[in-house]
Amino acid sequence: MKERPDVNDLSMDTGVQQMITKARDEGIETAFDRADKMKQCGFGSQGVCCRLCLEGPCRISPTGNGPQSGVCGANIDTIVARNFFNNVIQGTASHAEHAREIAHALVETVAGHAPYTIAGVDKLKSIAQGLGIETEGKEVNQLVKEVTDKALEDFQKQEGTLNWLKLKADQKSYQTWENLGLLPENAHAEIAKGMARNVMGADADPANLLMGTVSMGLVDGFAGLHMSTDLQDIMFGVPKAVKAQYRLGVINKEKINISVHGHIPLLADKVVEWARKLEDEAKKVGADGINIVGVCCSANELLMRKGVSVATNYASQEMPIITGALEAMVVDIQCIMPGLQQVAECYHTELITTLPYSKISGATHVEFTTEKADEAAKEIVMKAINNYKNRDSNKVNIPEEVTEAYAGFSTEQIVEALANVNPDDPLKPLVDAIANGDILGAVAIVGCTNPRKRQDQYNVDLVMELIKNNVLVVATGCSAHSLGKFGLLSPDGLKYSGKEMREVLTAVGKANGLPALPPALHMGSCVDNSRIADLLTALANYLDVGIKDLPAAGSCPETHHPKALAIGTYFVASGVDVHVGVNPQVTGSELVTNVLTASKGDFPITTDELFGGKIIYEEDSVIAAQKLIERIKMKRKALGLK
Amino acid sequence: MKERPDVNDLSMDTGVQQMITKARDEGIETAFDRADKMKQCGFGSQGVCCRLCLEGPCRISPTGNGPQSGVCGANIDTIVARNFFNNVIQGTASHAEHAREIAHALVETVAGHAPYTIAGVDKLKSIAQGLGIETEGKEVNQLVKEVTDKALEDFQKQEGTLNWLKLKADQKSYQTWENLGLLPENAHAEIAKGMARNVMGADADPANLLMGTVSMGLVDGFAGLHMSTDLQDIMFGVPKAVKAQYRLGVINKEKINISVHGHIPLLADKVVEWARKLEDEAKKVGADGINIVGVCCSANELLMRKGVSVATNYASQEMPIITGALEAMVVDIQCIMPGLQQVAECYHTELITTLPYSKISGATHVEFTTEKADEAAKEIVMKAINNYKNRDSNKVNIPEEVTEAYAGFSTEQIVEALANVNPDDPLKPLVDAIANGDILGAVAIVGCTNPRKRQDQYNVDLVMELIKNNVLVVATGCSAHSLGKFGLLSPDGLKYSGKEMREVLTAVGKANGLPALPPALHMGSCVDNSRIADLLTALANYLDVGIKDLPAAGSCPETHHPKALAIGTYFVASGVDVHVGVNPQVTGSELVTNVLTASKGDFPITTDELFGGKIIYEEDSVIAAQKLIERIKMKRKALGLK
Repeated sequence: MKERPDVNDLSMDTGVQQMITKARDEGIETAFDRADKMKQCGFGSQGVCCRLCLEGPCRISPTGNGPQSGVCGANIDTIVARNFFNNVIQGTASHAEHAREIAHALVETVAGHAPYTIAGVDKLKSIAQGLGIETEGKEVNQLVKEVTDKALEDFQKQEGTLNWLKLKADQKSYQTWENLGLLPENAHAEIAKGMARNVMGADADPANLLMGTVSMGLVDGFAGLHMSTDLQDIMFGVPKAVKAQYRLGVINKEKINISVHGHIPLLADKVVEWARKLEDEAKKVGADGINIVGVCCSANELLMRKGVSVATNYASQEMPIITGALEAMVVDIQCIMPGLQQVAECYHTELITTLPYSKISGATHVEFTTEKADEAAKEIVMKAINNYKNRDSNKVNIPEEVTEAYAGFSTEQIVEALANVNPDDPLKPLVDAIANGDILGAVAIVGCTNPRKRQDQYNVDLVMELIKNNVLVVATGCSAHSLGKFGLLSPDGLKYSGKEMREVLTAVGKANGLPALPPALHMGSCVDNSRIADLLTALANYLDVGIKDLPAAGSCPETHHPKALAIGTYFVASGVDVHVGVNPQVTGSELVTNVLTASKGDFPITTDELFGGKIIYEEDSVIAAQKLIERIKMKRKALGLK
Repeated sequence: MKERPDVNDLSMDTGVQQMITKARDEGIETAFDRADKMKQCGFGSQGVCCRLCLEGPCRISPTGNGPQSGVCGANIDTIVARNFFNNVIQGTASHAEHAREIAHALVETVAGHAPYTIAGVDKLKSIAQGLGIETEGKEVNQLVKEVTDKALEDFQKQEGTLNWLKLKADQKSYQTWENLGLLPENAHAEIAKGMARNVMGADADPANLLMGTVSMGLVDGFAGLHMSTDLQDIMFGVPKAVKAQYRLGVINKEKINISVHGHIPLLADKVVEWARKLEDEAKKVGADGINIVGVCCSANELLMRKGVSVATNYASQEMPIITGALEAMVVDIQCIMPGLQQVAECYHTELITTLPYSKISGATHVEFTTEKADEAAKEIVMKAINNYKNRDSNKVNIPEEVTEAYAGFSTEQIVEALANVNPDDPLKPLVDAIANGDILGAVAIVGCTNPRKRQDQYNVDLVMELIKNNVLVVATGCSAHSLGKFGLLSPDGLKYSGKEMREVLTAVGKANGLPALPPALHMGSCVDNSRIADLLTALANYLDVGIKDLPAAGSCPETHHPKALAIGTYFVASGVDVHVGVNPQVTGSELVTNVLTASKGDFPITTDELFGGKIIYEEDSVIAAQKLIERIKMKRKALGLK
């Protein structure tokens, strides 16, 4: 049998390494070991395998060996374009359903059927005004009703385009999309139409399919990301800067530990609330209290608004269980490894699924609905408390490392921080710093980790290279967690920054009572990539240019989920270059690869020419950073900046 | 190089054989040759390949060799269930968009924006009444508006279930679905939720995924099939029995030939209208006129309502071009082989795509909208006329064979035919014949042909075996075409029938001025499988039993499209056994295979137990017929029939 890889090669996080070793010693397999054992299919990973009907599966070799079209005659370009489209549809559907869940929760809340409150009244008013709703003299509940009507229209309307797109798009991008006929009608209709279009015997023109993919990206951006963030801000409040802790050391040996994992904060928020309410019950069973720790984007939501600690990110989601000190892991949807249950069965941890349409065989299921949110959250926390007695102290081994980080940098918080430097013209300090080159540009580090890549390393390496070159970093999702673990979300991280940017961020930090701003600003969960878009739109409007003209880019060095491809498509369509560090499974088609990755002028049709942004696929993070810097410099030059 | 298969092994249709030979002589590859060259992937064809994220693709061997779960921990059952679900979503999305297109066309029509008329006023009234709309004293246009509002609600409503499900479901099935929590909310929401549920890290419980698949099947049945048929009947009228011709011999050497191919009759109908209007233009260029021939389901729509001839069915769709006498092939969506363009480029045929979201590289695109239906249809027909001069007579070779067939057996037409035997109680003659065993039961032959199977043979063989045993056959889609080509849609076909059924069908035929009814009744296109469900519902209600209790089944011997899997799921959920003759790509999972195919009691959860219907996967058509007969006999026995 082949030797397993050294744990040091699997993750940069020594706590995670320690847990992989523990798991191996106990004969338990984790995602890292599974990734090592599973050979990726060479056809599928290049996007050249078509499974759209029962004549196939048909596989085309990109080297020209063997048949060059499927049984129906679909060629390699069509097949690759359809597979990419399908990935983007999957990602988009996930985000759209996230947004719709929140919309319905708000509807239930103001109807008095769900135990939530409306914490973001200012945001509510600003969104309502943006949607053209008269706010004067209206009660909060009435405004919520009108805003959610507009939100739900974006899943219903049979003509026109998304309200949220009109609310949030920058005007220059809007014009481009309208001219190209790419404006989506409603989110659900586009998803259904996308599936009907991508089916056997339907759209077979790869360029047309790619344009459909762009429309899908717009659905993801506006009816997924923006709507989710805006409605969550209305319900739970707009995040403000908070200080919190990172890494597996946040699991507390003396307490009952519950990990929340998934994406939609409706559940996570209630679990936190009930953990606080049931502290006494925890003490009754001999624990010091209840400790909630986050994993993945549920972690981000709780971190941003409540300063809840983060245990770890995607690829190492099994590790909190392996500490032996986790009483329950409660999950909702997306990025939940089914392998969690296999691992949980080796410990006392109870894995609890909560959504009727997202279960795992063998796990406990506690149905969560907004109407019964309190009952469900209470039941979940009580299950953890009752499970404490089953903890086997011989199996407990919690890594010690903990790092400190700042999070909560919503666009509103960033503007507020800048306003403490220049109250009359908050964006000016940032724009000036960019204009004079103290800040070269900005890159958003977003997305995932992937068990096939040394965890956190690629996210961290890219950021180190960028900040060294005075590129400001904003971060979301699991990649923000990577940065948090290694001090890059802390003012301390400025030691890796170029001198010029360090001075700017120190000055802004001091104006806000901090030693400095961190070199990477944590802006939230994956749906909060909308916040990054909002910031770019604000800057573009301030400068009266398009987003595509800004010296800004995005990067997802450790991509794993199709949601990342959907988000990337939205940003490319908005004129932002997007780096991916993992093969996006389009390399089998020269045509598709060129449309997405070639620079304007280097191929007859490119997203770079149409929208001003392109995909950069580069596995080496340092080289990727240099490529992003090169594109940033190009955009600076076009703006007349040195 | 390996020798190509004998043409006789590829299709039962000698005209098709003649064309494959011609193509080969001319160095042109067709789907049959492509199928021979393309090796199917063994993983994909068993459903065990997961391509849901960039950690994979992960493939699990069903033999237990190698890793038994993907990188995320998804096991073979989860992977197979997700892949099957995805296929059913794709099929459902296709049908749902079909229905919605017709709904919008009706809206445009009564608003005076689209050049169609409302031909099915009786159907309109009956559907309106079924939907609970007051019809008394209302104008046709007003009723259409109210009916289409109800139709569009089925893509919009945020609670409750589909109007069309409430309209068309039999009460016993409805109760079962409601009790199991399977009622879909709205078609688009279910599709989007299905995609979000099937995504990496979401639903990982195979049984739960299969229940989601059943809900999707209900969307397919009610918001896809039933709604499409009902709205098309409202717009174009309810089909009545017609006599027409089949096979490639319907292409007329002296005329300008246009083939319509695809699914949505909005285009096909207008092409027929303009072909008639432009006869004189055709004569000006030296042709004898214009001849429209059908392929696939557009053929069915025109055949059922206008008696338009049918050239051929799915697997041999390239053959009309190879005759060298086809001036244009005009297509809309679904089952359109991209390979058509490669073949068309070897002849003068102009391939014309019409929908903005369904193009083929290299083909001519004439955008078809309901608003500009006349302009587009005229342009298309004129393109064919202008292309006549490019026909190369040296390349013309049209097979001679033509067969006669009856079609147009809508449920209404069948009931009318029976009413001519017993006006007071039309269903009684049929029910009596079933009760006394003259007709043993009924099987619907539906769906496709597949270039991997000898075309038409499997459809025909199954029917021959069934009718020999006095099983009445109804047929739709491309399989109905198979029967039409070989005389089974004609009274002549009764010579293959058992004596008892032959006498019944002869008696009913004579009461209707025909020598006899054919042994197989052509009920329409693939969406018209709704008509079969309507007939079953009528019989079940008449007998006060569930559909699941009826001695009836469905069969798709030459399955190729995921739509067939969606339709099959709907029928299984309704309590109808469904035979498929092609691997439905679930065989990699024992669990999934058993849930879908095991008989009640043979496995802990089965669709047979939950709904009264199951999948029968059997490649041999004669054995399949025997299995269906066995299940029919079992259901007869349960009803107390001998």
